[in-house]
Order: sequence, then structure tokens, then C-alpha cells
Amino acid sequence: MTRLRRVFTHFLIAMALAAALVPWAQAQSDPLPSWNDGAAKARILEFVRAVTVAGTPTFVPPAERIAVFDNDGTLWSEQPAYFQLLFALDRIKALAPKHPEWKTKQPFKAALEGDMKALAASGEHGLLELVMATHAGNTTQEFESIVKDWLATARHPRFKRPYIELVYQPMLELLAHLRSNGFKTFIVSGGGIEFMRPWVEKVYGVPPEQVVGSSIKVKYEVREGKPALVRLPAINFIDDKAGKPVGIHYHIGRRPIAAFGNSDGDFQMLEWTTSGPGARLGLIVHHTDAEREYAYDRKSHIGRLNRGLDEAGQRRWTVVDMKRDWKRIYPAPQ
Amino acid sequence: MTRLRRVFTHFLIAMALAAALVPWAQAQSDPLPSWNDGAAKARILEFVRAVTVAGTPTFVPPAERIAVFDNDGTLWSEQPAYFQLLFALDRIKALAPKHPEWKTKQPFKAALEGDMKALAASGEHGLLELVMATHAGNTTQEFESIVKDWLATARHPRFKRPYIELVYQPMLELLAHLRSNGFKTFIVSGGGIEFMRPWVEKVYGVPPEQVVGSSIKVKYEVREGKPALVRLPAINFIDDKAGKPVGIHYHIGRRPIAAFGNSDGDFQMLEWTTSGPGARLGLIVHHTDAEREYAYDRKSHIGRLNRGLDEAGQRRWTVVDMKRDWKRIYPAPQ
Repeated sequence: MTRLRRVFTHFLIAMALAAALVPWAQAQSDPLPSWNDGAAKARILEFVRAVTVAGTPTFVPPAERIAVFDNDGTLWSEQPAYFQLLFALDRIKALAPKHPEWKTKQPFKAALEGDMKALAASGEHGLLELVMATHAGNTTQEFESIVKDWLATARHPRFKRPYIELVYQPMLELLAHLRSNGFKTFIVSGGGIEFMRPWVEKVYGVPPEQVVGSSIKVKYEVREGKPALVRLPAINFIDDKAGKPVGIHYHIGRRPIAAFGNSDGDFQMLEWTTSGPGARLGLIVHHTDAEREYAYDRKSHIGRLNRGLDEAGQRRWTVVDMKRDWKRIYPAPQ
Repeated sequence: MTRLRRVFTHFLIAMALAAALVPWAQAQSDPLPSWNDGAAKARILEFVRAVTVAGTPTFVPPAERIAVFDNDGTLWSEQPAYFQLLFALDRIKALAPKHPEWKTKQPFKAALEGDMKALAASGEHGLLELVMATHAGNTTQEFESIVKDWLATARHPRFKRPYIELVYQPMLELLAHLRSNGFKTFIVSGGGIEFMRPWVEKVYGVPPEQVVGSSIKVKYEVREGKPALVRLPAINFIDDKAGKPVGIHYHIGRRPIAAFGNSDGDFQMLEWTTSGPGARLGLIVHHTDAEREYAYDRKSHIGRLNRGLDEAGQRRWTVVDMKRDWKRIYPAPQ
């Protein structure tokens, strides 16, 4: 036996030992410590076991273990308004000195005065105008800096914490548990793809290339020999409702086996995911905790959950009751 | 020391040993055996070393090691015509019995008669009509089966081999070398995203979610309770020329550090990639081998390479001379 082969044999033995010990060591601790024992937690753990034990009929090869997560209301809070809308309102204020005409022009007037009623009255078209005025007209690099600066300084009106601290600790554990079992975790959100990409890797462990979202068009330009991607005031894709399975198809190209949402905007994503063959998991986060977070569902303007509640039972989707199922909502302040 | 801690300590030692041995064992063999020694091979190996050695100024964290590859002419052949066009022509023949009007209507008449001159004369609009007639009107699942069936049975007119065997062995080694050094490898092709996804994982080791390409629109539909994604006769995105950096941005969301192409359709992708800060690699496959493959560049209708050849020097892009740099072109027949 040569020295090389001997070293290599030791190496292989070490690898085999390590591989055998990893699951054993993991089984010693609870992967979801912020989840109370109950039907939701049991269902998640059972699903993960079902798709990862080789040789069983429910086994899924690692490459096909795709899990998709909505963001607003599923991974972080979305009240009193989508955080991206609060960002847009702050941007309007920051840009106002350059736009004196906004003082008298809707929806900008309402945005500057914090008149949420008038803002809502401006409708979808008004909101679109706000988004274009605050999200377009810069390069992708500039926009990334603007988002990062805002997240570093802005505070949530009720919790007085940075927005990226208002993420759900139980969902962070779920993301990690899936990844440690060979899943690839994606975000599939109605929110702006470029509003999420600058921070989701650090906060959720999801890299930018695994983010699907709504987007505006960008254009490649070379200015004085320096290439840039310029953000245009035109919608490219709306990743909501029936758009979610479409966004999943464009970006991922295969059907997920697990989907996590909280509103009827996630209905089609849950439907598409759970109607495939083999083991599937569909889960809805139900906001039931007015004290620690917010309580809203069928009648809410933001994150309305109506059809999902009606049909979860017959579709075998798991409904998480935040108040009952979660030991804690947010991570400890840093 | 408890039994648990003792076992765990052994486990950690084993892991450390394994981690230390892996690079050492890898260094013993040539990762690019089908590349002749020369400037191109040296440049690739030097770049990979530069970005992977921790503590050096050129080091790049694994999460940012994004490499993008054009497909047609870069990873597989594209002569005598793009393989996807040959697929479309075969589809026209297969669908012709249901479309008697095609016998007298261009560009279908030309396609059925194999009249490439008349086909070319139908221009971009004619080709688009062919693509829509052959690629739309089915579900994503149905189209995937059609592509797989075609690849299993069709043969290249000159080499008489299945198209997926006409991939470049040196590039397969390059893909594997990058991945074993922590790179995430993406395909960024002007070809159809759904024409590539069914086979690139098996052939290139690139999963469907790491494929960027041209696409037609799809629509989510529930027919008799069964959800499907239906392919529509409308262009969604053209991933070519200045569209490539845009496609990279939509799908990946960060700038690659290495780009591989073969034609002027890849120019902007190479420009965007190599104009970023730090160590960068831009590489062009130059088709110089009429005997083993094809020789074409400045005047070719397919895969024209003109500006890229002119500017490669000043931009420090590596030009691979297929005839001189590659020991072999295709993998051995299976």
C-alpha cells in the first residue's frame, strides 16, 4: 500500500464516519425550538422526514427539493402597510425638494401629508405612479444603496425596531431546517425583487439568485465606457396570485414540493405546488396574534386571507395559528 | 467527558482532516485534461487560484463566485444551424398533417421542403412564426416531453450523433473545475429556456433554476380542477446581446465574475462581467477547427464573431483557439 493510498483510505473512513454521525447528532436537538408542539410542527417534521429517507416511496432526490416562501406576512410582518410602501413614502419625502409640483399633485400630495385615506383613494394607478417615481430612474447599483441605507435607518412605527428585525423567528428556523435537509429555499413574493435582494441573504440565508418577485424593466447602457443597468419606469412582471406559478416557472423551471404563504395572493402558488405527485407540503401562516404582532384575515386590505381559510381543509394545507403555534414571533433585539 | 462529547470531538477531528485533505488530493490530477497547455488553460487555472485562495486581495467569497456560460457554440455546437431551429423544422414536419394550409404558406412551405434559402428570406418575422407554431399552444409539461423525445431520436446531419453528445468535452471539464472550486455555474443563452431545461442538468450538471434564456409567455390555468402552465404565442424575453446583462440581472441579481461565450451575441455579457472590480475572467471560444468541428467567425450568419475578435486584446479577454487549445472536441460516444 502506497502512502498516498493509505492517506486516502483514512480520508474515506473519516468521511464515512462523518456522514454517519451528522444525522445522529442532529436528531439530538429540536430543529424548530420556537414552534410549540402541535399539528403544524408535527406536519412539517413528518414531511421533511418523508422526502429525505432514501428507499421510501415518498423520497425526493435533493435536486428536486424546492421550497418556496412568500415574503410579506410569511417571513416578515406587513402591517400597518407593506414595508416597501413605507419605503416608497419615505422616498417621496426625500425626493420632494426636487419636485415642487408634488405639493399639489395626487398621489404625491397625499404621500407627503401622510394622508393614507387619500392615498388609498388614488387606487392601483396612484400606487403605481408612486412606485415608478421612487423606484425607477437610477441604476441597479444606486437603488441597492438606497434600499440598504433606508433599512439601516428606518424604524417600524409600532415596534420601533429596524424592519429587518421584524422577521419571524419560527420561519427562520424552518428555512434552516429545510436547507439542512437538502432543500433549496426560494422567496416568491409580490414585493419588488430589487427591494429584497440587498438583504435577504444576510437575514434569511437566501441568495439573490433564489429570489422571485415583481420587477420593473431594466436597460443595459454603456455611458462613457462604463456599463450600467438603468431602471425604467415600466412594469416588467407582477409576481402575485396567478403570477406566482408563472414567476416560479420562469425563474426555477420546476414545480416546488413545499410552499409557504399567508394570504390569498399565495393561493395559486400553494395550489400549483401541492397538486403535483408525491409528498407535498402547503402551509399558511394565519395572523391571529394582535398582542405580539397583528390579527387579520378575511377583511384585511393587506394580506387578505379568505379563500385560503375556506379551502385549506379540503386541500390538506396546514394552517399555522401564530398565537397558539409560535413560542415567539421575532428574534431577540441585537 | 461524556460519551456524546467524545463522539462529537472525533467527528470534528474527522471533518477537519477531510477538509484539509480535499484540496491536496485534488491538486494531484489535472482538472482540465482535454486542454492543451497554453495561454488559455494557464489563464483559467490562474484565475480560479486567484479568487479561491483566502487572505489574498483577489479572493472572492464562494457566494459571489458566479460564472455564466453561453450555450450555442460555447457549450455545444451550433452548425449547420442552431439545434433549436432544427428541432423547430422537425416539429413543423410532425405537425404538418394537422395544417394542410402550410403546404402553400410561407415560411411553413420552405420549412417542409427544407428550402433553407427561402426560409432565410422569410426573415426574423418568418422565423418567429415558426417558433410560435412549434413552441406554443401546449403546457410546459407537454413541451418538456416533446423536447426530450426529439433529443432521444434526432441525429446531427454531419456527425450522426444525438445532439446532446455534441457538447464540448473541454467545457464540461471547465464547468466541473469551477464548481469544485465553489462556483455556481449558470447558462445564459439566446436559445429557449424551456428547450434547455429538460436536459442541461444531466449533460452539464447545471440545474434548471440556473438557466437563463429567451422565453415565450406562459399562463396559469386550472382546467377541471387540474392546474397547468400553458405556453402562449407571445415573446416574453429575448436573452441576446444587450439582453444578456438584463437577463442576468432578472435571474441572478448580481454581477458574475466569469463569463464564457463565442459570438458577438455574448459581447455585452462579457463586457458587463469583466468591467466589475477585482479578478475577472472573460473567455471567447473561437471556432477554428473545420476538420473536427467547424471554422467560422466574422462572416458567419450563425454565431458571428467580429467585434469580439477586434476588442478581445484590449479588454483582456482570453480567446480559445479550438484547433490549437483543445485535445478533443466531443466526449467519446456512449
